[in-house]
Amino acid sequence: MPKILIEISARHVHLTQQDLERLFGEGYKLRHEKDLSQPGQYTSPDVVTLIGPKRKLENVRVLGPCRSHTQIEISRTDSYHLGVKAPLRLSGKVIRSGAIKLVGPKGELDLTEGLIVAKRHVHLNPEQASRLGVANAQDVKIAIEGPRAVVLGNVEVRVDEDFDAAIHLDTDEANAAGIEGEGEGEIIK
Amino acid sequence: MPKILIEISARHVHLTQQDLERLFGEGYKLRHEKDLSQPGQYTSPDVVTLIGPKRKLENVRVLGPCRSHTQIEISRTDSYHLGVKAPLRLSGKVIRSGAIKLVGPKGELDLTEGLIVAKRHVHLNPEQASRLGVANAQDVKIAIEGPRAVVLGNVEVRVDEDFDAAIHLDTDEANAAGIEGEGEGEIIK
Repeated sequence: MPKILIEISARHVHLTQQDLERLFGEGYKLRHEKDLSQPGQYTSPDVVTLIGPKRKLENVRVLGPCRSHTQIEISRTDSYHLGVKAPLRLSGKVIRSGAIKLVGPKGELDLTEGLIVAKRHVHLNPEQASRLGVANAQDVKIAIEGPRAVVLGNVEVRVDEDFDAAIHLDTDEANAAGIEGEGEGEIIK
Repeated sequence: MPKILIEISARHVHLTQQDLERLFGEGYKLRHEKDLSQPGQYTSPDVVTLIGPKRKLENVRVLGPCRSHTQIEISRTDSYHLGVKAPLRLSGKVIRSGAIKLVGPKGELDLTEGLIVAKRHVHLNPEQASRLGVANAQDVKIAIEGPRAVVLGNVEVRVDEDFDAAIHLDTDEANAAGIEGEGEGEIIK
């Protein structure tokens, strides 16, 4: 199987336009910094603070563009640090997920749900999925070589016209696999 | 293969008696809190602060008994947080490892080496190793089941009369494998 790019997702926040305005002020437009590998997605210099019962995490990036649901993605390490419950969920599956407080420069939000540890996944467009012989929603294994070689199970395939081939791991997973910056992995079915 | 206990090693410090006295005062004796799974090893309520160029980590446990070399074991997440270089090393291999500053209640230590990210390993006594068909210094794979199922490669077998069967992972590895508290894994050769 050909190697696929691995990108590390550090803790980040997706906001609805409404929640963005609550945190950054009425009529605020999220600033654009750098395009991400997935077409249309970008980082922003705009940051929020996550407040947990135990501790807080400052300077957490908001990613753009705004979405239809607010979602906060942290690592398991982060959930212990904050002292919060964050279920392992595929991105977008926020119903009855974890509670968290967000603080921005102009306001705060006490969310009863939206906090997750993201289930590891691989983005593919339909042509790439077809070539690799995998389908949307399928769980595959990803083999990663190196001094901390691993085979990660339960990596969900996500297929969409707007995607491009990339495996997304959180920082715990990347660190456990010895990946710094970017890496590469191979699908094992 | 039979399942083996997995224990999570949070960041911790091993000190020589001399370094203990530098941090805690002349003639200090490390206090005993709780026995660990490896015979003779124990936790202590005594803690130090790790000071890195970027940030610090407080309340880091000293484990007992004192050793012939001072060694500080952190996760890759911790090394980014502190802003330090910490090579991946088997416990005990501290020559030309990372530098770190330790602060205790009575003094501080500027170490030029001793900081590592511990290579994952499995403790076995000779009888257990023989039963499992593995030998000291051999690298094996460990399969872990669950929602974050993984197969960890390059897990070093450590055999000693004073050991008892236990796989030791750091917090990044445990979080990536979805283990909370304790888990279990299976050797795959």
